[in-house]
Amino acid sequence: MASKEVELRGHIIDSYILPRVWGAIEDAGARFNVREMRIGQSETETSYTRIEVVADSAEQLDELIGELQRLGALPVTERDAQTAPVTQTGVLPDDFYSTTNQPTQVRVGGRWVAVEQIEMDVAIVVERAAGRAYTRPMHDVRVGDEVVVGYEGVRVEPLERPRRREAFAFMQSAVSSERAKALAIHSVAEAMREARSHGGRILFVLGPAIVHTAAREHVAALIRRGYVQVIFGGNAIIAHDVEAALFGTSLGIDLNTGEPVEHGHRNHLRAINAVRAAGSLAAAREQGLLGDGIVATALEHGVELVLAGSIRDDGPMPGVITDSMAAQAAMRQAVRGVEVAVLAASMLHAIATGNLLPAAVKSVVVDINPAVVTKLADRGTGQALGLVTDVELFLRALADELAE
Amino acid sequence: MASKEVELRGHIIDSYILPRVWGAIEDAGARFNVREMRIGQSETETSYTRIEVVADSAEQLDELIGELQRLGALPVTERDAQTAPVTQTGVLPDDFYSTTNQPTQVRVGGRWVAVEQIEMDVAIVVERAAGRAYTRPMHDVRVGDEVVVGYEGVRVEPLERPRRREAFAFMQSAVSSERAKALAIHSVAEAMREARSHGGRILFVLGPAIVHTAAREHVAALIRRGYVQVIFGGNAIIAHDVEAALFGTSLGIDLNTGEPVEHGHRNHLRAINAVRAAGSLAAAREQGLLGDGIVATALEHGVELVLAGSIRDDGPMPGVITDSMAAQAAMRQAVRGVEVAVLAASMLHAIATGNLLPAAVKSVVVDINPAVVTKLADRGTGQALGLVTDVELFLRALADELAE
Amino acid sequence: MASKEVELRGHIIDSYILPRVWGAIEDAGARFNVREMRIGQSETETSYTRIEVVADSAEQLDELIGELQRLGALPVTERDAQTAPVTQTGVLPDDFYSTTNQPTQVRVGGRWVAVEQIEMDVAIVVERAAGRAYTRPMHDVRVGDEVVVGYEGVRVEPLERPRRREAFAFMQSAVSSERAKALAIHSVAEAMREARSHGGRILFVLGPAIVHTAAREHVAALIRRGYVQVIFGGNAIIAHDVEAALFGTSLGIDLNTGEPVEHGHRNHLRAINAVRAAGSLAAAREQGLLGDGIVATALEHGVELVLAGSIRDDGPMPGVITDSMAAQAAMRQAVRGVEVAVLAASMLHAIATGNLLPAAVKSVVVDINPAVVTKLADRGTGQALGLVTDVELFLRALADELAE
Amino acid sequence: MASKEVELRGHIIDSYILPRVWGAIEDAGARFNVREMRIGQSETETSYTRIEVVADSAEQLDELIGELQRLGALPVTERDAQTAPVTQTGVLPDDFYSTTNQPTQVRVGGRWVAVEQIEMDVAIVVERAAGRAYTRPMHDVRVGDEVVVGYEGVRVEPLERPRRREAFAFMQSAVSSERAKALAIHSVAEAMREARSHGGRILFVLGPAIVHTAAREHVAALIRRGYVQVIFGGNAIIAHDVEAALFGTSLGIDLNTGEPVEHGHRNHLRAINAVRAAGSLAAAREQGLLGDGIVATALEHGVELVLAGSIRDDGPMPGVITDSMAAQAAMRQAVRGVEVAVLAASMLHAIATGNLLPAAVKSVVVDINPAVVTKLADRGTGQALGLVTDVELFLRALADELAE
Repeated sequence: MASKEVELRGHIIDSYILPRVWGAIEDAGARFNVREMRIGQSETETSYTRIEVVADSAEQLDELIGELQRLGALPVTERDAQTAPVTQTGVLPDDFYSTTNQPTQVRVGGRWVAVEQIEMDVAIVVERAAGRAYTRPMHDVRVGDEVVVGYEGVRVEPLERPRRREAFAFMQSAVSSERAKALAIHSVAEAMREARSHGGRILFVLGPAIVHTAAREHVAALIRRGYVQVIFGGNAIIAHDVEAALFGTSLGIDLNTGEPVEHGHRNHLRAINAVRAAGSLAAAREQGLLGDGIVATALEHGVELVLAGSIRDDGPMPGVITDSMAAQAAMRQAVRGVEVAVLAASMLHAIATGNLLPAAVKSVVVDINPAVVTKLADRGTGQALGLVTDVELFLRALADELAE
Repeated sequence: MASKEVELRGHIIDSYILPRVWGAIEDAGARFNVREMRIGQSETETSYTRIEVVADSAEQLDELIGELQRLGALPVTERDAQTAPVTQTGVLPDDFYSTTNQPTQVRVGGRWVAVEQIEMDVAIVVERAAGRAYTRPMHDVRVGDEVVVGYEGVRVEPLERPRRREAFAFMQSAVSSERAKALAIHSVAEAMREARSHGGRILFVLGPAIVHTAAREHVAALIRRGYVQVIFGGNAIIAHDVEAALFGTSLGIDLNTGEPVEHGHRNHLRAINAVRAAGSLAAAREQGLLGDGIVATALEHGVELVLAGSIRDDGPMPGVITDSMAAQAAMRQAVRGVEVAVLAASMLHAIATGNLLPAAVKSVVVDINPAVVTKLADRGTGQALGLVTDVELFLRALADELAE
Repeated sequence: MASKEVELRGHIIDSYILPRVWGAIEDAGARFNVREMRIGQSETETSYTRIEVVADSAEQLDELIGELQRLGALPVTERDAQTAPVTQTGVLPDDFYSTTNQPTQVRVGGRWVAVEQIEMDVAIVVERAAGRAYTRPMHDVRVGDEVVVGYEGVRVEPLERPRRREAFAFMQSAVSSERAKALAIHSVAEAMREARSHGGRILFVLGPAIVHTAAREHVAALIRRGYVQVIFGGNAIIAHDVEAALFGTSLGIDLNTGEPVEHGHRNHLRAINAVRAAGSLAAAREQGLLGDGIVATALEHGVELVLAGSIRDDGPMPGVITDSMAAQAAMRQAVRGVEVAVLAASMLHAIATGNLLPAAVKSVVVDINPAVVTKLADRGTGQALGLVTDVELFLRALADELAE
Repeated sequence: MASKEVELRGHIIDSYILPRVWGAIEDAGARFNVREMRIGQSETETSYTRIEVVADSAEQLDELIGELQRLGALPVTERDAQTAPVTQTGVLPDDFYSTTNQPTQVRVGGRWVAVEQIEMDVAIVVERAAGRAYTRPMHDVRVGDEVVVGYEGVRVEPLERPRRREAFAFMQSAVSSERAKALAIHSVAEAMREARSHGGRILFVLGPAIVHTAAREHVAALIRRGYVQVIFGGNAIIAHDVEAALFGTSLGIDLNTGEPVEHGHRNHLRAINAVRAAGSLAAAREQGLLGDGIVATALEHGVELVLAGSIRDDGPMPGVITDSMAAQAAMRQAVRGVEVAVLAASMLHAIATGNLLPAAVKSVVVDINPAVVTKLADRGTGQALGLVTDVELFLRALADELAE
């Protein structure tokens, strides 16, 4: 038998934090006793509770306390986070703490320090002398790095349910295609406008269906209006964007008639080949190969392009990062400062990006296939607003909303 | 061993008619010998072939010849269609001929007579004295009706592949959401305009998602512009249309904010109750309950409304035909003269309508769920153009195309 | 400004009842003050709270209190339920109370009386003299019926989160195909065994894909083992079951080879015609037409068959109730005493059944299409366990589990 | 005005080759005259036709003739394939011939030479001296390689419709979940048995859902029985397989109870970390970390594992090839000798593999999501048999079929 006291503070009831904590305790087969409880007497006051958690063994208790901390509970007796040194490059200490994507602090030298560059499923490295803590993916840790182990001295601030209806208040809602989309699109536009007003970055993750459905003009318009600072994509969208510029087709389908053109299947290879001959996307643009598509407009407006390769790629296009870890690192770097993320018609890149984004980034996942949105949610990007709709419609309406 | 000669005429090679006939013979384990073959020497000339079909038994041959006739082949020795009298109300003779939805003729008194009101999966009744033949569903046949049995004296004209690209030339294309939709929408608009120019009727089959996605205004606009003569729907779309008029909600979701309203779940029941209190949709409209939605506009412009009930209905709304066979009969009556059919966001009503429509009607099935379109194709409505897209987008774009 | 006190009792925190109540108050733009709060000091003790709800107007307060009652809150000052008489057949009083599918009581003459035959979206009729209250669908109310109006004197008992992991404890979990199904199937089998042990009825709602996927033998096996007391279905499953018995095909596909057979498209019509000629399913069985399929086994074992027609039906089969309200009434009658419901590969019938089932019935929805399960949840049958899997696998595994 | 004669030989009518050729001519707005036509007089004789194709310009004619050659037509006057030298590493000559995945020959020095290692969307390199021709992906061509340009001297042998029903005869059938799966599974098993009987290799492409759905045992059983020579997969399936071995969970879900375990979200990271600490999968197996899962069994039986990385990977696992072009090269190497390919529950890897496989390989795509199968078909892997079913069921049934 082992026990420990934890505390919770904030809008812990209506944000489902306390219910989740109790549920986790029960699910673990442990017990609890409420030692203190101060309920906010109205919707503007916060609540406080102190709970004794009782488990069968110290080991089970430890596991459970760690789980509760991820939900926002905090041990009453505060201790510094424990660390262990990395002894093998790219390998973490056994009991390493694995992050969530929510704002996280670690206690270093008696002070709570915010973990820099928070993202999901990575380790926390502590520099005691500098009083700093930051995330680092497994393969990047070096011998000597001090990595947080166990759960003590770590605290997570779960996102609270917003007090009032807000732009992204419907974020948690179930995935459904049977909803009026205009409202959601309006909210996304608002969030983008807000981000731009103070220089926040906006990220677009784009799949090739954007070009197949003839929506590249809408993306270009958004770029021209200053609403896109970063684009993540793969070889395919770039190949099809150039194919559309050179031949007016996408995967061989004429974008003006919707009919396959003769030999069209070859056009995306010819497009890739042409850019390879030019040497780079920038050189291809100078030679006038890119027309007015997504890439051309992005290059013209200094949008950061992070292109990641995959095993199904033809070519690939110059500029595509073929090493997946290098590409991930470039994406990790590029999400810094991103406040709004639009993940459109892309599964692989959307999931990869979802893994890198802090929970506080306002994200919207747009796909005509509900399974894609469900999949993202299954993998932890639960904060994203999911829209099951035609991506062409979505981008056109978004560009219209942001036209003036 | 039994054999029989059949003939094929027309664009039998590039319309896949001859290949299909040969394939059917092989699949049946039978054999064939080509007795005569005149190939169109260019794309404007038609072809002709005469084939001897050889099967192991007379019975197998009969079955096979019947199959080939459905594909467009014709026995060389023409005979009148055989008929047998109905001896039990609502029950067909054992060997009854079951129709396709393609143009069909039967030989009566040595003359080929077009079968009136062709639709799928029904029987053909022959009135010899009058020299007429028409379809009749199983439950409608009466004692004494002469029903076509066997396959002799029946000929089907399969739709040929159009010579040139036409509005609905892409109808056979695979279901995919990754296509530019603007072109398809333009073709549908063209077909509707064409139909209107000579007084052809246009049918809309509508599901409740039309209202949930706030697309009712687009339907109302199409009605006002004269592009809707008939609407098929169920209790739900009418209930939600009235709910939207009375409370601004659809299934309790506020159409202006996308948020659930308090007690909104009750609004569709209140809407139904209000119309029941009024006594009829027409009376409700006179009392000003219907606002400017689909039903109000339809009533104002004399659009024929056929509302069919189902077991999941609340209420139901006055005007909903609760007997499924009576509803089917009303739909059967209403599809006469229909030249273009738009089946939007409805599965049950779309399949039911698909069963009733002749193959020559230009049909488009619109749904965000590819399974719905696939399902329609599986059930034989292969001629329909399938569009996997957001129905709200589709209807808005269609209304825009037909605005001037 | 208007205010009222409400109380909550039970596992109100970990069952998310209190958070939902607070959320609803905030969403309505109202305020609350906690007047009393006793928190269960451990997971076995229940909690109690008394809250003052403050709204801008009496009208808003009324609406909100009604909403809170549906969530399980109860006004502190108890009053009898108010009723109003029906003045027009089939039309409810304006402010009628619309039910949830959760256990509900109304206060009649100072006593709380359980509402009989609870189901979703219907009215409550009170017989004061007899001290009874029962549900009645809108179209069934008669002049003089006393129908509950407003929200006072009505109390709902929301299902609480189970204390321990139980058979259907995962019911609330998200729809996903990426789960091990064996466990869920085991739980369903357990629930069925449990129901049978004390004579509880088990309902199967079956769609035609059951026959297409060659799963009819598994259903027949479950019937023989006593695990099916009621079957709901439509014309199609019966037609295909008979087609399989007569011709070995389903919609013309040979169930042994998976290949289309010649003229197979006609087989389901011939099957329907044969039963129509026999006069009834029972007569067809006596003539040996039904083989050993679902219908034959069901008739042999006295399973109650409720067959509801729809507008897409051919025939229809004798025994199919073509009037949708009559069919609904028969289904309503047949769900009495049902404790477990398996809704397999059917959308229309599953939704219709979901509307009729009390929340306490253990329900499982099985479909390979996640959209079907999502749709059921959207319409309020949130308690159902959703399984996205191949229905043939599911039924085979279920029959195996229940074999001994 | 320009014209040229082409010939077709074989089962050109019932294999839809002639109809497709005529259709392509018409679609291009060109014309044709039939110069000679010998129709196979029965189903065992082949046919021959010689057609004059007439186009408006020599350029259009060239394009069209190229298209017809891909369909199986052959210019009457045979010439050697033309080649052009690569002048820039990784860049093809402008007019390069892009392959299909069907058997292809090029004419070199007057002789028809089979193109080695045919796959889709790559170039053909000719070594005149050696009389050889082989495929090479764009990024692999080197300065001096002689690459086929234009369409002359290239001939494609389209797969003909098989004379009789065979294992994979239903391959072209539409994707549908409403089919009996047992037959298809039996055919796949037959093909695997056949391949094994003469030493043909069998490839499994596996996605992580295999582990989530507890189907890893079935894969291991197939390996033990000798039915798996090559496995393609990504980081995730390996991570989850090891996670299952170490902790009994998959993505943190207990595979025995279906419930999330505490901290389970961390288990896949711990699994990866453990293997990284061991240094390699082989070392991890020696240390007993891998239990009896897919990887352990594969290593034990000498199955070739090609693991390709992607940007969403954690870790990654030792052995995962992070460079996408290197991974593609390894896959390209490993598909040699593959006769049967089972692509299960994987989208990215399945598409990538589909691009590499010759048309003659018997492939089956298994996924519960019809969109995945449709997507593969859209990208040209049309020969694959698509099965929409639960992958766990499929693998269990396949292992059962191949048990004795």
